[in-house]
Amino acid sequence: MEQESRQINFAFIGFGHVGRAFARLLIDRRKWLLKEYGIEWKVTGIATKSHGTAIDSQGLPVKKILSSWKRHSNIDNFHNGPACSSPTDFIRQCGADVLFEMSVLDLSGEPAATYIREALGAGLHVITTNKGPVATHFRQLTGLARLRGVRFLYEGTVMDGAPVFNMLRQTLPATRIRSLRGILNSTTNHILTQMEQGTPFEAALDYARDAGIAEADPSLDLDGWDSAAKLSILIQAMMGGRVKPKDIERSSITEETGRIVRAAIRRERRLRLVARAYRQGGRVIGKVELQELEVFDPLAAIRGLSNILIINTDTMRELAIVENNPSVDQTAFGLFSDLISLLR
Amino acid sequence: MEQESRQINFAFIGFGHVGRAFARLLIDRRKWLLKEYGIEWKVTGIATKSHGTAIDSQGLPVKKILSSWKRHSNIDNFHNGPACSSPTDFIRQCGADVLFEMSVLDLSGEPAATYIREALGAGLHVITTNKGPVATHFRQLTGLARLRGVRFLYEGTVMDGAPVFNMLRQTLPATRIRSLRGILNSTTNHILTQMEQGTPFEAALDYARDAGIAEADPSLDLDGWDSAAKLSILIQAMMGGRVKPKDIERSSITEETGRIVRAAIRRERRLRLVARAYRQGGRVIGKVELQELEVFDPLAAIRGLSNILIINTDTMRELAIVENNPSVDQTAFGLFSDLISLLR
Repeated sequence: MEQESRQINFAFIGFGHVGRAFARLLIDRRKWLLKEYGIEWKVTGIATKSHGTAIDSQGLPVKKILSSWKRHSNIDNFHNGPACSSPTDFIRQCGADVLFEMSVLDLSGEPAATYIREALGAGLHVITTNKGPVATHFRQLTGLARLRGVRFLYEGTVMDGAPVFNMLRQTLPATRIRSLRGILNSTTNHILTQMEQGTPFEAALDYARDAGIAEADPSLDLDGWDSAAKLSILIQAMMGGRVKPKDIERSSITEETGRIVRAAIRRERRLRLVARAYRQGGRVIGKVELQELEVFDPLAAIRGLSNILIINTDTMRELAIVENNPSVDQTAFGLFSDLISLLR
Repeated sequence: MEQESRQINFAFIGFGHVGRAFARLLIDRRKWLLKEYGIEWKVTGIATKSHGTAIDSQGLPVKKILSSWKRHSNIDNFHNGPACSSPTDFIRQCGADVLFEMSVLDLSGEPAATYIREALGAGLHVITTNKGPVATHFRQLTGLARLRGVRFLYEGTVMDGAPVFNMLRQTLPATRIRSLRGILNSTTNHILTQMEQGTPFEAALDYARDAGIAEADPSLDLDGWDSAAKLSILIQAMMGGRVKPKDIERSSITEETGRIVRAAIRRERRLRLVARAYRQGGRVIGKVELQELEVFDPLAAIRGLSNILIINTDTMRELAIVENNPSVDQTAFGLFSDLISLLR
């Protein structure tokens, strides 16, 4: 495809595992983006919680920042612009067309929801992997985006880059979801299935943490909050319900759960943390429960960091999508696929 | 969405289980199509092999034809237009914007490929569920469609309406498929998994036939031709290979296979007809094989008429899509989802 190239400016809030993986993916696909969509991009701003903030309207040296990244890196010295004292300042001054919001999960949805609101209000498109603000402020943020004529996209919030929202939106027309169930949290699934094989709880948790998969605060995984936030987004975006994370019953996974896991195995069954939603009298109910499943249940086959979502629809009956052993690269791909939706 | 409505004319070649299910779906979604896409549709022609042919530029009474349909129905008496002595005549005179080609599978791809060529050449969009012509004439037909500026879509050829081609095209940008494997034929999977439970071969085959799932000539299922045709389409459309069905090694399923199925069960393993494709030195190789799988292989979990496709990609690692117990309604939905792609 030949077309004139146009310049597009990106800003990042958050530059952790996911943000850096996304930056690498953008660099890797630079030629592809130019060839397929005629775009040249630069990153004009990066704001982090503990690694400083930098704005440069000429484009930050992302490759250099990545290659020299260390645990205590600080990007303040790349800043080349007006002083910027707060994230709100940052959003106003970063000169971006698209804001990628990748800060860590907080159940209140704040401060990310404020950042997103600020950005949408200023006419920026926003793409996020952050479940918090999407789950807690879904109607407000999608409504604001519509009002301002910009896009608010969040494919990476559930099952990383596996097409969930995009699949329903773009490939399943005129389809109503009756119910859904799945395994949406990698950390707890890894722990449960490692405990099946005798691995201790702590060792399994450490593995997920080292892979950059566990939440910064692992209790968000273990107490079912991460699953509940994802389920809340699925319910609001795909089923038209109004269920917030706090409205969802949850089970927790602890060291003690190992006993239940092993007892299930002896009965030829498998324990999984199942997120599900169903309709009841005009409402949608969401639950995140530890369930003992028959071995031939498709959810029982999901092991390690893998995820599954099964949707029950009025057009295609039951469809399942499975993501096998994701890493942060797959979360980064969620941001990338949203970027492509936006460019289209 | 408010927009002026526009008229779109459809023609059908073939009016068997799938064609009639699609007609019912169109009727069912008439209001939705008007509301979402501002289109009013009519069917201006139906051509069948053994139930006659009818053209009416005012629109055929599809509801009436459906409700009075019997094994020996003939639609000739609904014909209201110039005499039309051949399918080629039909295509030229049917006055359609979109041709839905739903005739039965023939491994040569003919005569369907001729119909499709004729229609594309005459500037009609073509949507098909017919594996034959897509597998055997892939480059010719996609090339012709491009040349004539019309769409040639075939989502329903593999896994019915489950988004396979649309998923890759619309939701997995910049993604290269390294390899894929799956269970693509419902009839043989139903037979294999029924034989696991002691059901005789013939009874299991009859069930698939009665459900309208088995091919008109069941040897196309049993000898792996249906799987090979689907695999050929996946390879050509998604991996850029040039593998035709006849280039694909196949296994057959017979009454004798029951013995192997039961022997596998005794070893805690499962027999499945596995279609797979992989790259080797710049080429793509396709195989359809009876494989004995570990019980925890995701393919072993696929039972009855269900299908699965696992793609191994450079962006999302492994993604699987599972379609549970499809009927002809799900094949019809494949045509419908292609129609929506076209309207977009």
